[in-house]
Amino acid sequence: MDRNPDVDLKKLFAGERVSISRAITLVENEQEGSEQLLKEIFARTGRSYRIGITGPPGGGKSTIANRLARWYRQQGLTVGIIAVDPTSPFTGGALLGDRVRMTDVELDEGVFIRSMASRGSLGGLSKKSIEAADVLDAAGKDIVIMETVGVGQSELDIAGAADTTVVVLVPESGDSIQAMKAGLMEIADFFVLNKSDRAGADQALMSIKMILAFRKNDGWTPDVLKAIAIEGQGTEEIAAKITEHRKFLELGDGLKRKRRQRLEERVRELVADRLRVDFWANERLTMLSAKLDTVMKMKSTPYDIAQELINGFQKG
Amino acid sequence: MDRNPDVDLKKLFAGERVSISRAITLVENEQEGSEQLLKEIFARTGRSYRIGITGPPGGGKSTIANRLARWYRQQGLTVGIIAVDPTSPFTGGALLGDRVRMTDVELDEGVFIRSMASRGSLGGLSKKSIEAADVLDAAGKDIVIMETVGVGQSELDIAGAADTTVVVLVPESGDSIQAMKAGLMEIADFFVLNKSDRAGADQALMSIKMILAFRKNDGWTPDVLKAIAIEGQGTEEIAAKITEHRKFLELGDGLKRKRRQRLEERVRELVADRLRVDFWANERLTMLSAKLDTVMKMKSTPYDIAQELINGFQKG
Repeated sequence: MDRNPDVDLKKLFAGERVSISRAITLVENEQEGSEQLLKEIFARTGRSYRIGITGPPGGGKSTIANRLARWYRQQGLTVGIIAVDPTSPFTGGALLGDRVRMTDVELDEGVFIRSMASRGSLGGLSKKSIEAADVLDAAGKDIVIMETVGVGQSELDIAGAADTTVVVLVPESGDSIQAMKAGLMEIADFFVLNKSDRAGADQALMSIKMILAFRKNDGWTPDVLKAIAIEGQGTEEIAAKITEHRKFLELGDGLKRKRRQRLEERVRELVADRLRVDFWANERLTMLSAKLDTVMKMKSTPYDIAQELINGFQKG
Repeated sequence: MDRNPDVDLKKLFAGERVSISRAITLVENEQEGSEQLLKEIFARTGRSYRIGITGPPGGGKSTIANRLARWYRQQGLTVGIIAVDPTSPFTGGALLGDRVRMTDVELDEGVFIRSMASRGSLGGLSKKSIEAADVLDAAGKDIVIMETVGVGQSELDIAGAADTTVVVLVPESGDSIQAMKAGLMEIADFFVLNKSDRAGADQALMSIKMILAFRKNDGWTPDVLKAIAIEGQGTEEIAAKITEHRKFLELGDGLKRKRRQRLEERVRELVADRLRVDFWANERLTMLSAKLDTVMKMKSTPYDIAQELINGFQKG
């Protein structure tokens, strides 16, 4: 459980790039000592404001993250970006190469950008990206932007991890993403209709507003902003809306409640992970294999052997 | 743990529709007694051949399932279809209305069709659909078809649950589904290029074949079949390819290995579920809430309290 000596905590807290990079690598690869590190930096977290950016592929999420980062830098704030690529769990290769276009922001010392690709399951990736956000938080970044493609579960995880969630759509976001949109509609604190100079923009705007009209209202009314991120149009409005939402959360107990939920989720995940690891220690794996033979012969059922295995594990 | 008295096992094993329907409802709603039922029918399972059909939205998966069901019926086989709708976990509404078009098959007594929509998480839905497949298996269906949209995790679950996995693409399956395709490429036992009379079909065929050329070969070479399912073209070829794959699996120990993996996965899920339920009993939930207060005050960390909670749970 010792922490990897390559990460110098003092330097990390001072925001030094190499230390941040090493710490995130530790977390991403789940290397020996990563949990110890997360434990040691925990007291330094909770100061960043966390922005989630999600939506269907090809909507310009990276460009918006880029523009926002630049805007915050102009305000004198430091920024960290975690870009989550939900690529194939099989191939391991990143499909989204958007990040290479962000060079001007990457050269800025006040911005730290990290792409994380899926090597295992998407669920695991979300956990790691949240831990990477903790590293950036502890390293003193005022703003942490978490960006992910909204497919299946990943956008829900991002929404859970962010203080403000921005969903980016484009006028073409039509049929093929219907299935995603339903979920995206519920998690957005506001929408950005990017590439809004394209055909069908007004119609898309209208239909989003119509759907929003049916949404339950908890004191905050989600809005739709137009943007042409590639030209920088709309960035200031997006940043202003994020500030507005932040103030809304801070006025009530919204922010505190979100963070508490996040911590609770974290504890539940840690418990599930540890129970799994503890449970499937060698002896029990051997037992499983032997018991599966009896199930294959129809002499037992999965339900019986799950219970038998558990009986030897719990107290009382 | 008593089974719901509404399900008559004798009638279920005889394939009676009302009993099948009640049993699946029990499982879908995780009602009292559902696990007892699954345990009781387990010895009758393992006889159906399970076909998974997945792919991007709008590819015609339901039509293909429909056509296949009709084809198998003509061979004198009975068929069950589980259609999994990975709709928003928030709205609870089904987005895919394809099923209503399947009336001619639905009127056939030898075919049982059930749609399952997501009420909780996608993961939970996969589990329930596999359990529903067990019900159909025990009810004597020769063929069980499991159909789901390939987004995120659901297509992997289906592939794990099926003996043969068919991935349905269309010529237009382009940019927006790149992220999915990478995963889909790996799980397909073969591909169907549906709507192959559309523009770009030959190009799409070529690019799928090119990607397949890079795939690892385990003795089985995945193929691409053309189809126009709405007109019934290609159904026989699809059925023949499924039979070919089944024979390939049965010749070696492929089928046995797949089923063993499936059972192991089931046991692991059951263990994880039970541990979670047992763990978060009332006292521990109360402890969690109190401990979260200390974390919010930065006097403890999620890592510490996860360990504290676990310490009181495990034996030795």
